Amino acid sequence: MTTQHLIDQIRKKQSFLCIGLDTVLDKIPGHLLKEEDPIFSFNKAIIDATHHLAVAYKPNTAFYEAYGISGWRSLEKTINYLNEKHPDIFTIADAKRGDIGNTSSRYAHAFFEDLGFDSVTVAPYMGKDSVEPFLAFENKHTILLALTSNAGAFDFQTQKVNGQEVYKKVLETSKEWQHSDRLMYVVGATKAEYLADIRAYVPDSFLLVPGVGAQGGNLQEVCKYGMNKDVGLLINSSRGIIYASQEADFADAAANAAKELQQQMQAILDAK
Amino acid sequence: MTTQHLIDQIRKKQSFLCIGLDTVLDKIPGHLLKEEDPIFSFNKAIIDATHHLAVAYKPNTAFYEAYGISGWRSLEKTINYLNEKHPDIFTIADAKRGDIGNTSSRYAHAFFEDLGFDSVTVAPYMGKDSVEPFLAFENKHTILLALTSNAGAFDFQTQKVNGQEVYKKVLETSKEWQHSDRLMYVVGATKAEYLADIRAYVPDSFLLVPGVGAQGGNLQEVCKYGMNKDVGLLINSSRGIIYASQEADFADAAANAAKELQQQMQAILDAK
Repeated sequence: MTTQHLIDQIRKKQSFLCIGLDTVLDKIPGHLLKEEDPIFSFNKAIIDATHHLAVAYKPNTAFYEAYGISGWRSLEKTINYLNEKHPDIFTIADAKRGDIGNTSSRYAHAFFEDLGFDSVTVAPYMGKDSVEPFLAFENKHTILLALTSNAGAFDFQTQKVNGQEVYKKVLETSKEWQHSDRLMYVVGATKAEYLADIRAYVPDSFLLVPGVGAQGGNLQEVCKYGMNKDVGLLINSSRGIIYASQEADFADAAANAAKELQQQMQAILDAK
Repeated sequence: MTTQHLIDQIRKKQSFLCIGLDTVLDKIPGHLLKEEDPIFSFNKAIIDATHHLAVAYKPNTAFYEAYGISGWRSLEKTINYLNEKHPDIFTIADAKRGDIGNTSSRYAHAFFEDLGFDSVTVAPYMGKDSVEPFLAFENKHTILLALTSNAGAFDFQTQKVNGQEVYKKVLETSKEWQHSDRLMYVVGATKAEYLADIRAYVPDSFLLVPGVGAQGGNLQEVCKYGMNKDVGLLINSSRGIIYASQEADFADAAANAAKELQQQMQAILDAK
């Protein structure tokens, strides 16, 4: 998907919501456990109930790998379903991969070509030649970890290198890499006040913002400091939507939770 | 596996060789492509031919994920074969994972419990709460990226935070984490002269050292600066061993290449 296509979808749906499909068997309604593939059945129901309210879905690969081959199959069915039924949805493999060049190429192949995701999250620790193999794919997007939403972000990301925090060094350095226009960045909503600084480095890039809801981030604050002329934000909510109810009404409850966020987003877009 | 068991195996085999199973279909001998699972057949033949010369095997997950479900199945068969036939072998999932706490727990479950690896490589960028879920597993080992063997290591890892390189900050900080005695570290052999400095931070930890051979690292240099009283090194070679020949004699050629490294290691151990 092109960035412009994503922007068009945001304008059309009046939403920049990303729904995190962090699906675990012990949190999905009991009646689904009788299905052949409970994880996929759950994801499909969530997607069917919310696809008009969200522009992106983000399965985190950890939740699928934890079930081995059957989990990988659920992931494959989920991305296939999204690509076949909802080609206007932007898909994110939240995989946080990154390795030496020829190995990163294999990951890029796995997520962009074999599975067919539009984007993948990548850790920056190993530098340029670990990220550029992902950037080589046209109309695919590499979402680089910059400032994450967890407490551990302060261990290394906010440490200062020559007076500049490591995450800002990541932003600055990555802009020099080949095809850096295919980069987006992960910036945690729990640190909304950092977004103004971040926008000074990457004014035009999309930011994937986890941490609204369960992790305590505030939507209005994130938009105040992080929104650009193209919106430039994908706000992720996982548990707050997909586990809004763990009963038979889970899909309706997810739709209601998504609708609430979408309406807040619409109000923010209207006010701009 | 306990650390002491690994040390005992090193003493017994007079080897601290780790063989990287970075298996790709277009590099394995043609006659294996007729097998039901060519990747596993190749790995099995390599393991059968070299297990007396090596103390560890390290499949890099990227090479398996690139083949989707069938790749994941090959990985599962490979680790099962190692655990059943060669329980004295130390197994490493070279996965370079790392995510927020509850998500890292899923990865830890996937690699330690579901697949049954002894260890997994983890990226430090997200800090303490992204790594501790791995450290929670007794007799399992978390191998943290410190200084990698690629050119991109100089983008962030060697940048200085208050006069201290980021990778040293990673070493120092990680020692304070809960169950830090279960940590090992990745240190690239292409930077052998850094090893003396690294030993000042982590005198007792095992170091996983990729980059000997194909990437240009030198075994003698690595041992000179990196070896400790328990040896404390796992030297990885991937392509130099598994693709020593791409013909029908590939397993014998792999054994010869492994034997050559094992003998160099034995000479180094003898000289100590």
